[in-house]
Order: sequence, then structure tokens, then C-alpha cells
Amino acid sequence: MKLDLSLPAGELTASLVDVESVSGTEQRLADAIADAISDLPYLSMHRDGNAIVARTNFGRPERVVLAGHIDTVPVADNLPSSVDGGLLYGCGSCDMKSGVAVQLRLAAQLAGAARDITYVFYDCEEVEAERNGLLRLSRNSPELLAADFAILLEPTGGLVEGGCQGTLRADIIATGERAHSARSWLGSNAIHNAGGILDVLRAYQARQPVVEGLPFHEGLNAVGIGGGVAGNVIPDECTVSVNFRFAPDRSVEQAAQHVREVFAGFDVRIADSAGGARPGLSQPAAVSFVAAMGGEPRAKLGWTDVARFDALGIPAVNHGPGDPQLAHTRNEHVPLAQIADCEARMLAWLSPAGA
Amino acid sequence: MKLDLSLPAGELTASLVDVESVSGTEQRLADAIADAISDLPYLSMHRDGNAIVARTNFGRPERVVLAGHIDTVPVADNLPSSVDGGLLYGCGSCDMKSGVAVQLRLAAQLAGAARDITYVFYDCEEVEAERNGLLRLSRNSPELLAADFAILLEPTGGLVEGGCQGTLRADIIATGERAHSARSWLGSNAIHNAGGILDVLRAYQARQPVVEGLPFHEGLNAVGIGGGVAGNVIPDECTVSVNFRFAPDRSVEQAAQHVREVFAGFDVRIADSAGGARPGLSQPAAVSFVAAMGGEPRAKLGWTDVARFDALGIPAVNHGPGDPQLAHTRNEHVPLAQIADCEARMLAWLSPAGA
Repeated sequence: MKLDLSLPAGELTASLVDVESVSGTEQRLADAIADAISDLPYLSMHRDGNAIVARTNFGRPERVVLAGHIDTVPVADNLPSSVDGGLLYGCGSCDMKSGVAVQLRLAAQLAGAARDITYVFYDCEEVEAERNGLLRLSRNSPELLAADFAILLEPTGGLVEGGCQGTLRADIIATGERAHSARSWLGSNAIHNAGGILDVLRAYQARQPVVEGLPFHEGLNAVGIGGGVAGNVIPDECTVSVNFRFAPDRSVEQAAQHVREVFAGFDVRIADSAGGARPGLSQPAAVSFVAAMGGEPRAKLGWTDVARFDALGIPAVNHGPGDPQLAHTRNEHVPLAQIADCEARMLAWLSPAGA
Repeated sequence: MKLDLSLPAGELTASLVDVESVSGTEQRLADAIADAISDLPYLSMHRDGNAIVARTNFGRPERVVLAGHIDTVPVADNLPSSVDGGLLYGCGSCDMKSGVAVQLRLAAQLAGAARDITYVFYDCEEVEAERNGLLRLSRNSPELLAADFAILLEPTGGLVEGGCQGTLRADIIATGERAHSARSWLGSNAIHNAGGILDVLRAYQARQPVVEGLPFHEGLNAVGIGGGVAGNVIPDECTVSVNFRFAPDRSVEQAAQHVREVFAGFDVRIADSAGGARPGLSQPAAVSFVAAMGGEPRAKLGWTDVARFDALGIPAVNHGPGDPQLAHTRNEHVPLAQIADCEARMLAWLSPAGA
């Protein structure tokens, strides 16, 4: 199949949606993108599995990354795509083939630009972090990702969402002493003792700090609980799994320390974590981008791959068509006008006239 | 194999222990018991699967049941039996082949007695109630179990334990509303809400009522808890499984009503229940039995098959050799002297001279 990059962005999005690309099965779509990119002589292309990096070499002093993942969550009886009332429906329409379509439209049109541009298309964003194509690229070829600023075209409803919160998971363990439930007073009930953990969670006051001008909103929540030995046994262990979403003014280490302090007296085991990203909106490229996009930037509360750019020392924001609340829903859709509008604004910002 | 009922009760116990009879595999032991019973002309025998009922027909105005289960929990590297320092070790030594040995010794010696006697040997007591051999007998042949008084030779350390507490299991369900954990304030956390259930459990004051002269001790405990959808989702349901052990002055219905009242405001689903048994120690046969056994009777706090006799309208007590705390342990054992002592006291009570 051949992608037609001369189509309006909405129609191009539909073409992309109709190439099913659930995480791990992106090859056909990656092939099509690589084929289309290879027709653009001003782009040098690198491929790593189903991830593709295409770079301009305009000799500009500043370089920006435009990045998007090409995989989707599993299809939910929502393929092929369809259009109704100016809305494009289908798996990946919102998250984030509309953003990928904008990348491809920009690549096709910007034979010259105010800034050098690195287009990144990557696989396996919707699954466990170790399979993430952007992580793989950052390990195998970090030099290809080098830039002054990065824009991740994840759905933000057309707003600029700066940075992202970090996430940390920990198991908080309450202990007790086993006994037969007919003589419960001979033991100590670990599930009852876990009430102390839930007390902490219920009383927890989440911070809402302003970081580099953007208001974040933390949260500390139980996401799992388990305990029990048998129907006639007083249990000796109960585990509460908590998820701490923390603002980017805390490091992962500080977040872990905070969780340990909050649950002082309980056994705290950190399971996994991923740092957040500061908004970085005071960087010159970011200032110019925000001004060009219009609207008031807001904080990204969910963790996204902007944190990977942050870890590489590259300020990054999220900005793309589509309502983020619709991501991963069966009813996923995106307004066609919002895709065109995103393309137009970014084109204006990147074209030579915008320099 | 042939059981030798002329052996001292301790040695006979060892013979029984050495015939492995984990629940469901009692046939060889049941065959041996049936064979031994068939040699005793004053007993009429009935067999139902691996349960055996052997009845005297002495024409006495009063009839007592002596009952014991012949199955054991799974072997825990504790067969064959061994003797050390006057203690008999081995799977089932305490729970309750020493009691079964006493039954068989009495059967062999009591060619006449002060009361008619119904010996019941049954299978599958250590597994789910539906497989219980005494339940099967009570459904198939209730007339064979008819009596004025029943003694279950479960381990009680040689004391008389009257009645038993009932048990009820219920699931108490806390609900909430799902949300992404990055925006937890958009949902309602069911695990946090389950803190209210644990509050109730932690504050619960268990009754210790005296029923027919015996002090019971209730208990309401979580025996399981579960909740959670995924590591990044605010869960919408959390279930706490509770076990209510209740004194026999409450019926099953009253116990269920109590649990519903205690957890008012939560969804309460009764999972299963089994009523307790009143001690019945004021019955003439019980008064005589307690006096003959000596010692101060106490309440049975664990649920036992005395409740099945209670349901048939037959007062019942637990009385047998062995420490109940050792039941189901790898280290299970019973003092040989306690077996002999139990046999001697019961023989004295049942023999014609004791009438």
C-alpha cells in the first residue's frame, strides 16, 4: 500500500487508522511510512525495527523533534474508520494517528523550514516500557534524537500540555499473626491492620504545586489490595499496592522517600517508577511554540514519553489533535477540523516565513 | 489387614494411624473397621459408602451415639506412626484416630451396657461439608442416628466441650467509580472506601455470652480482601470477606441479620453459614456423662459435627483424647496415657455397673 501525503490531514488520518497496528504488529504501517518518507529527498531516514527517524539538514541553528507513536491499543470492534458529522471514528483516530498524520503532512510540505526538524515515528508505546520504540532509539541512537525542543503529538485537544507527572508504584505491607478464625484473639489480623494504611490514604492531602507556571495535581491511591489465607484463618499478611502520581518538582528518589515517610511503620516496597518532566516552557523554542499555538498551556497530568526527552535533556511538550479523555475508548474519535487546524498552526510555526 | 481390638487403645491407635486415610481414600480403613465390627455379634451394622453405623440392641431406655471420623488431613511426612516419650506421633494420631480407637475398644468390650450405644464411623469430615459422611448418613438413614445424647470423640484434651459456635461467611463490598490514576479525583476509590469496612472490624466488640452455663467467645474477622483493576486505574470495587463465629444463642438467621446491621451502608452478601449447637448439658444423659468424665466442661469454639446432631435434635458434646491445638499440624501427636484414660472413663460410664 502507498500513503498519499497530498491528502488533507483528516483523510490521511483515515488511511492510517485503516492500517491496523496494535502494539507489536506495526510492521505494515511502518513500511508504508518509510516508503512515503523515502520519496522526500530532503529527509535522511534511519529505521530501527518499526521505529523510523527522518531528519532535515537545512543547516538551521535550532532543531525540533516531532514525535508520535504508530501503535494502538487493541481494536475494539472500531475498525475500519468512519466519518460522521465531521468526526473521524476508529481505533487510533484520537490516540494518535491524527497526530502522526500531522507529522507526515508537515514532512511532505516542509522542504525548507525555520528550524531543522527530526520526525520520529515509533512502535510499542501502549505496552510495557521495555518494549517502547522511543526508549530503544534513545539507547541505540541517542544522537538521532538530539534537539533543542521536542513536541509529542499526543492528543491534547489542540492545547499545549507542558511536562508530565511522574508515577511510582509501591507495595505497602501490613503484617499480623495467623490463628484459627474460631479463636481469632490468639492471632493478629493483617487485613484489620491494613486499615491503618487505608487511614493514611483517606487522610492524604495531595499537593497541587505550580511548577514553572503550570499547576500540577498529585495523587496517592490504592490500585490494588490483597490478603487472606483461607476462609477459617486469621491472615498474617495484607498488601496494598499504591500508585503515587507526583509533580515534576520531585525526583523519583524524592517521590520514593515521600511514600516511605507517609507509610512510616509499614513495610514499603517500591515496585517501579518513572520520573516526570518539567514543562520547560521558558526555553526559547518553547516560548515561540506556545505563542504560535495560542491558548493557555496546561500541565500534563498523565505520564507520557515527554519524560524520555526530559531524561535526554530535551525540553518537551505534548500537543496534538483529539480529546485525551477519549483515548483507549471504543468510541474513540477526533474532529477533522482539529486535525487540519493543528497542521495549519504547526506549518505556520515551522515554515521559513515563521522564522 | 485385620484390626486387633484386644490391643491397648494406644497400640490400636497406632494401627489405625498406619492405615493412611486422607479424605476420599478411607476405603481400606473402613473395610478394616467393618471387618472388626462384624466379629461382634451384639452389634447390627449398616454401611453407607465409607461410613459405618453399628448399633447395640440391649433394650435400654436410653441410647447414646459415639461418633468419630476416620479421615485425616493430607499426610505431612508424618507417617508411619512413632512413639517417643509416651507420645504417639503421626497423621491423624490426635485428630482423631485416638478417638476412633476408643470407640472400637468400647465396642469390643461392651457386650452389655447401661445404655444402648450407636457407634458411628464416618468419612470426609476434613473436606467440604457436602462430602461429609455424617451429613450423608443423616440424609439417607436418619433413623440410625436417633439417640438421646451424642458424644463426638474429637480431640478435647480429655475435657468435655459442650456445643459449638456457628460460622458464617459474607462478602462485604465497597464500591467506587473508575478513573485513570493520573486524574484520581475524577473517580472514587473503592479500596479507600473499604477503609470504612475495616473501621467497623477494628472497632467491633465481640460478645462473650454464657450459654447454658458455658462461656462462648464470638469473633468477626476479615479472612480475605481483594480489589484492583490495573496499576493505573482507580478501582470501582473492593470486597472484604468476613467470617463471623457466633455463639449458639444466635440462629444462623440472627447471625446473618447481625452482620447486615453491623455493615449497614455496604453491600452484604452472605456466602455460606452453619449453625452452632447449644451445649445441652442439662440433659440427663449429659449430666451423668459430665459427672463421670470429671473436670469442668467448657465451650467448643470451633465448629464441629456436634452441630449436625443438634440439627437432628440430639444434644451432643465433644470429648476425646488429644490437644485440639495440635490438629492438622505436622507435629500432631497424642499422649498414650490420655487415650487409655479416655477409654477407662467411658467404659466405666457405659458399663452395666455404671447404670
